[in-house]
Amino acid sequence: MRPIGVFDSGVGGLTVVKELVRQLPGEDIVYFGDTARVPYGIKSKETVIRFSIENILFLLRYNVKLICVACNTVSSFALPKIRNHFRVPIVGVISPGAREAVYATKNKRIGVIGTKGTIKSRSYEQEIKKLDPQVRVTAVACPLFVPFVEEGWLSHGVVSTVARRYLKPLKDSKVDTLILGCTHYPLLKGVIRDAMGSEVALIDSAKQVAVEVNKILSDEGLLSSKTKGRADFFVSDNPEWFKDLAGRFLGKPVKNVRKVNSV
Amino acid sequence: MRPIGVFDSGVGGLTVVKELVRQLPGEDIVYFGDTARVPYGIKSKETVIRFSIENILFLLRYNVKLICVACNTVSSFALPKIRNHFRVPIVGVISPGAREAVYATKNKRIGVIGTKGTIKSRSYEQEIKKLDPQVRVTAVACPLFVPFVEEGWLSHGVVSTVARRYLKPLKDSKVDTLILGCTHYPLLKGVIRDAMGSEVALIDSAKQVAVEVNKILSDEGLLSSKTKGRADFFVSDNPEWFKDLAGRFLGKPVKNVRKVNSV
Repeated sequence: MRPIGVFDSGVGGLTVVKELVRQLPGEDIVYFGDTARVPYGIKSKETVIRFSIENILFLLRYNVKLICVACNTVSSFALPKIRNHFRVPIVGVISPGAREAVYATKNKRIGVIGTKGTIKSRSYEQEIKKLDPQVRVTAVACPLFVPFVEEGWLSHGVVSTVARRYLKPLKDSKVDTLILGCTHYPLLKGVIRDAMGSEVALIDSAKQVAVEVNKILSDEGLLSSKTKGRADFFVSDNPEWFKDLAGRFLGKPVKNVRKVNSV
Repeated sequence: MRPIGVFDSGVGGLTVVKELVRQLPGEDIVYFGDTARVPYGIKSKETVIRFSIENILFLLRYNVKLICVACNTVSSFALPKIRNHFRVPIVGVISPGAREAVYATKNKRIGVIGTKGTIKSRSYEQEIKKLDPQVRVTAVACPLFVPFVEEGWLSHGVVSTVARRYLKPLKDSKVDTLILGCTHYPLLKGVIRDAMGSEVALIDSAKQVAVEVNKILSDEGLLSSKTKGRADFFVSDNPEWFKDLAGRFLGKPVKNVRKVNSV
């Protein structure tokens, strides 16, 4: 009966919540969005690790049975470190996404897009190479995509122009599979698909994360026996801003958003 | 011989440093950029006040004789509060910018652009109305401008398109004076001028802030007697990212950037 904990720097992790609710409707979820310190994508490894540990300590107060790191930057920078510190199973977004991409590619050319932090860490590349050293990886940072999503510009002409510009190196290197390596990016799927062409497979880690959570909980006998779970949302700042955006991510309005004073 | 303290959420405040160095070349400057928690523009008043107090406490360790709040969001949300707490004179960017705009306008229609936080606070409007209740103020948030500047897109076609879209209500209301109410925006002056027309006066608070600092220091007999001061820069994260951007803001490379572990 213990909840699943999910955290992200802000709202992006809600794409993971959406998939968890779809695939595991009986589970309770406690979400923490660190909106006082969002975004993490431009911050250093050391700082992201420190923030992540604080976020996990917050979720542990709710006796969570598993933690989803629903943020690519955190998964890239902090996962090995924080896994060492804590007993609770911690699932990141990198290896599920990498696995799915390696499974999907036919020409062994995979593209990755993400924040500056995620791309600089080369975490997807390392994970992919472990699975198949033959794969050629092309990775590009798209720093304006998060501001576009948060501004609600999901299909605007300007966004298409920027997407074509950012994605050109990926088109040029003829990837047949593209990892959306940031939890905000699934909201720009339409624009990204237009720029890349419909023959390119877009990999949304959120789905694979939910598959992995399902597997771990079922292996450990920890799946909920309820038919319908609840979700509670905590943020470190600006619950109204979070609520506004959350509807866009989840496809339905959220209640239960509370501001917590410190993590 | 005491330095002037300047703080901002990140790099934007360097437009103020540039003006201080130009108008007061003999002064030493200690700058703090809170890059671990940047940006402030989307955060709540309460959180911005808390961060600002921490930043001021950091600067006070350097025995500063005056503090410039080189951030419109902080000046809007936190200035009255923090002025009450501290003895050191604190200069914000709102009232110098408002004063200059009221002085410049002929048709008594002033536009203001800034972050969501600054616009929501209506701080410029209140300040302008105090000076001249007849002035009509039109204010618009431009949340994508900061990411554009930080991405180095200062004159790109996309930026022009976004600028025309954001600035349309200001064109429509026929303002003859526009306050650049965010320390990043002077870098987009070219694009903003193209969108507004060259007959509209663009008010850059940084210049007026330096005028005010000069006045206070000279009134109090605190002006430096040196001919050339030095500037030291501290950030809470990512000194390399700060250095990269700082060149763009100051027009010359910066040295002396140190990361400090906590504010």
